[in-house]
Amino acid sequence: MPDTEVFIQQALAQAAQSLLLTSPNPHVGCVITSPDGNLLGQGHTQPVGGPHAEIMALRDAAAIGHDVRGATAYVTLEPCAHQGRTGPCCDALIAAGIKKVVATNTDPNPLVAGQGFARMRAAGIEVLVLPPDDPLAMASRELNIGFFSRMIRKTPWVRMKMAASLDGKTALPNGVSQWITSPQARADGHAWRARACAVLTGMGTVLADNPKLDVRLVDTPRQPAVVVVDSRLETPLDANLFIAGRACYIYAAVPNDIKKQALEARGATVVYLPGAQANGTPTGKVDLAAMLQDMAKREINELHTEAGEKLNGALIRAGLVDEFLVYLAPKLIGQGRGMADLGALTDLSQAVPLTFVSTELVGPDLRLLARIPGRDSF
Amino acid sequence: MPDTEVFIQQALAQAAQSLLLTSPNPHVGCVITSPDGNLLGQGHTQPVGGPHAEIMALRDAAAIGHDVRGATAYVTLEPCAHQGRTGPCCDALIAAGIKKVVATNTDPNPLVAGQGFARMRAAGIEVLVLPPDDPLAMASRELNIGFFSRMIRKTPWVRMKMAASLDGKTALPNGVSQWITSPQARADGHAWRARACAVLTGMGTVLADNPKLDVRLVDTPRQPAVVVVDSRLETPLDANLFIAGRACYIYAAVPNDIKKQALEARGATVVYLPGAQANGTPTGKVDLAAMLQDMAKREINELHTEAGEKLNGALIRAGLVDEFLVYLAPKLIGQGRGMADLGALTDLSQAVPLTFVSTELVGPDLRLLARIPGRDSF
Repeated sequence: MPDTEVFIQQALAQAAQSLLLTSPNPHVGCVITSPDGNLLGQGHTQPVGGPHAEIMALRDAAAIGHDVRGATAYVTLEPCAHQGRTGPCCDALIAAGIKKVVATNTDPNPLVAGQGFARMRAAGIEVLVLPPDDPLAMASRELNIGFFSRMIRKTPWVRMKMAASLDGKTALPNGVSQWITSPQARADGHAWRARACAVLTGMGTVLADNPKLDVRLVDTPRQPAVVVVDSRLETPLDANLFIAGRACYIYAAVPNDIKKQALEARGATVVYLPGAQANGTPTGKVDLAAMLQDMAKREINELHTEAGEKLNGALIRAGLVDEFLVYLAPKLIGQGRGMADLGALTDLSQAVPLTFVSTELVGPDLRLLARIPGRDSF
Repeated sequence: MPDTEVFIQQALAQAAQSLLLTSPNPHVGCVITSPDGNLLGQGHTQPVGGPHAEIMALRDAAAIGHDVRGATAYVTLEPCAHQGRTGPCCDALIAAGIKKVVATNTDPNPLVAGQGFARMRAAGIEVLVLPPDDPLAMASRELNIGFFSRMIRKTPWVRMKMAASLDGKTALPNGVSQWITSPQARADGHAWRARACAVLTGMGTVLADNPKLDVRLVDTPRQPAVVVVDSRLETPLDANLFIAGRACYIYAAVPNDIKKQALEARGATVVYLPGAQANGTPTGKVDLAAMLQDMAKREINELHTEAGEKLNGALIRAGLVDEFLVYLAPKLIGQGRGMADLGALTDLSQAVPLTFVSTELVGPDLRLLARIPGRDSF
């Protein structure tokens, strides 16, 4: 099916255009073709509350004056079957007279989960779904890894960003870290922030660097939320991360309702999630696993973390990190702060095992994407 | 000159075949073609004392029965003009009736340095030499970077090999380091050892790991020498690095003639090169810069170092390292030994600046070649 592949690739390209746009909805593209393989219309999902990819493609065809009756629709996710913020897409395709639908994936959303396909088939539409291990199905899933994670695992996909020298130092012994990596790498880092639903950091970074953690160095139609792990609610009320109109979640372990109210007056949502030891004694630290579950309930698909070695180490040791986005600058620093404090391992079998997914030069720096094997098998 | 480029590329491919073979002589290839562009013969330099590339190409043509009178010879270095271990190649080309010679580079050896070209021109041969910034000239120079370094700078080209986890750790806090990188990366490291004239390590590594430092994991026609920086002559007489037939140099700072004699009985050459402070007080450490000068006198072109963070740091801080061969394993270790101890920097401008020359996956690991900018401008 060479044509099928071409049209699905085109639908994936549409989906990719919506990467910064549609969260917490999935990034989906749709291409509609005539039976003899002419392009009739295409589109991708719009921001939350706006039309999905199928509706955009139908509108595109209508705008050009193309008749889609008897046509084939290629979509990068199962058309929705539920009345959510918009009407069900499967009904729109049926009403338009589409004869065949080729979809890369079944929607993991329990409100859809095959019902879209079933309703179209019941209406006489021929429905073809790629097997999950088809490269095109996997490409669509990768584009929506956070959405699939939230729907299936009920936690976000956690991507830990780290920037270091070639010898793994994120700061000099005196704390100086600005800037180890290049402007190009920092802009690239902002592009990865932009696709996330939230950017997480810890209290140490807030106090040391007072970062904004917004997307500034690349254009973006929306700002991800900011999340602070702040066990004792030490976030200063004048911290740079309070930006009007941007969601801000502060996770704490030790209640302090006066500070909580003050932070909420700054626009933050404060959530108490104290961790407890096996015997029930509070750890004084946030329950990081519970935090991720809470984030999923808040519709956070991809979580991008930018924290110091302590919080990085805590997240890794709790088994909560899925992949690492690492920028290595071509310089040696020698002594200094590390990328993640994992305690003192005594055997190499205790190391965190990764697989390099991609390696690319970004300006003078090297960008590595490395994933913990099996973490994407959900 | 598309044909010229093709034949020089072919001569470079010949030269590359001699990479593990010819040290301390340069790696050179030669291709001889008829005036209408037919290949008549080709060859590369043989081990020390054996024929050079030009002689091998002439012999190849003769063996096939080709007449090389009026032919063109493409060589990746100026044909030698001196009676060394073999006769002058320029005379052989003249005697064979070669009409035109295209060479990528002038020989930096002061015994040649243009005399080969001059003698051929005097004999009526048309000689064409590529400009030094021609990519093919640079490729030939890269193949012989150690030879050029020794001839021009009077020191070897120093390539520092390091193997670490993605977060820059070469060993766990308890010293365990075997094996952080994969068998594929270790074999690749042996291939880099094989092209070097000598492999250097420090006393710390000898005592901790008792390495052989020979080439075992890839085939090689010769073993590089081994060099130990051993300020107080602590190398055990039963160390694994004493291998019959392999040159072994031990550089010391504190004389101990009894130990020296015992080490020399094991086949080592012991050299005292004590460092001194500005006021003349001995440092108790080897003068590393003087050591490199001594190595060049011993015809060491490329020096491959595999040492611990202390000696690595000392070599780097002394400004003696040209490039870094780094293997990063896809794992995180957290705490542990670093790649090079550079002391505590206080400003990022003090970091050792590098440029990534190449990045490649070797099995599951990442191999990076990084060079200090300007170090190859000699």
